[in-house]
Amino acid sequence: MKRVLILGLDPGLAITGYGIIAAENRRYEAVAYGGITTKAGMPQAQRLVVLYDAVSELITKYRPQTVAVEQLFFNRNVTSAFAVGQARGVAMLAAAKQGLPVDEYTPLQVKQTLTGHGRAEKDQVGYMVRTLLRLSEMPKPDDVSDALAVALCHAFHAESGLLRLARQADS
Amino acid sequence: MKRVLILGLDPGLAITGYGIIAAENRRYEAVAYGGITTKAGMPQAQRLVVLYDAVSELITKYRPQTVAVEQLFFNRNVTSAFAVGQARGVAMLAAAKQGLPVDEYTPLQVKQTLTGHGRAEKDQVGYMVRTLLRLSEMPKPDDVSDALAVALCHAFHAESGLLRLARQADS
Repeated sequence: MKRVLILGLDPGLAITGYGIIAAENRRYEAVAYGGITTKAGMPQAQRLVVLYDAVSELITKYRPQTVAVEQLFFNRNVTSAFAVGQARGVAMLAAAKQGLPVDEYTPLQVKQTLTGHGRAEKDQVGYMVRTLLRLSEMPKPDDVSDALAVALCHAFHAESGLLRLARQADS
Repeated sequence: MKRVLILGLDPGLAITGYGIIAAENRRYEAVAYGGITTKAGMPQAQRLVVLYDAVSELITKYRPQTVAVEQLFFNRNVTSAFAVGQARGVAMLAAAKQGLPVDEYTPLQVKQTLTGHGRAEKDQVGYMVRTLLRLSEMPKPDDVSDALAVALCHAFHAESGLLRLARQADS
């Protein structure tokens, strides 16, 4: 079976979007998607534990072969950049701890890969996610749609890598 | 024995300073300090694993009762804010995973607590660290000295909490 599972993550402390897609012969299917939320009232370190445990559980349950994470380079608010960085660090750690490769894509790369140009509106990315995965509704909130988008971006980018992985899964 | 161990951390991806101090009746002693470094050539997720494992090991080895982390609110470079955020998230996770409380202090709080005023020069904080811990030399690099400083800051701040902890350790 040449099916490859990819876990896409759009990390944040309040909500981390996740999307697991299956890629096979350039056809893509949404296996599971949703949001991991942590409560604002909790101590920050505890919120990170909730996030880490949830991502670890997703990996144990679905056994993706690879992980793709949305990478941000700018943010109006530097305090929120720290918070997002913490969430992303913990999410990446959960993947690396289980031996999975982690690839990062910028929002620009995701846009370009999915829509063909980097100035696409956010709507267009969502539209491509829905179309490629043949979903009847747009996954909500945006964090979930963005997680599926980064997983699809990885599938497109890593076509050769995917084939190699698929062969390993075959043997 | 009313001795309380505090682990101070100054997280960064390239180097995370750590300092473990023992506090007892307002006397402070440096138990262990140094830097956890990760190589720039490694994939980021792997660097986070190295950091997480090293902090976890320090906790297993020295069994501090509490962890204090330096909190940054600003940074000229937002990309580096993300990187520092990732390192801090992973360091805090390592502590929380072992059930330790994690407290955060801003550089301003550390300065004010150790030197009595928030506009102290960096040298002055280092001088107080060296003096309070009776060290013959200034711990180097700054990340290590800063980690000891945040541990001392926590000891000062948490006097009542420390006494409570010390009583628990007694019984």
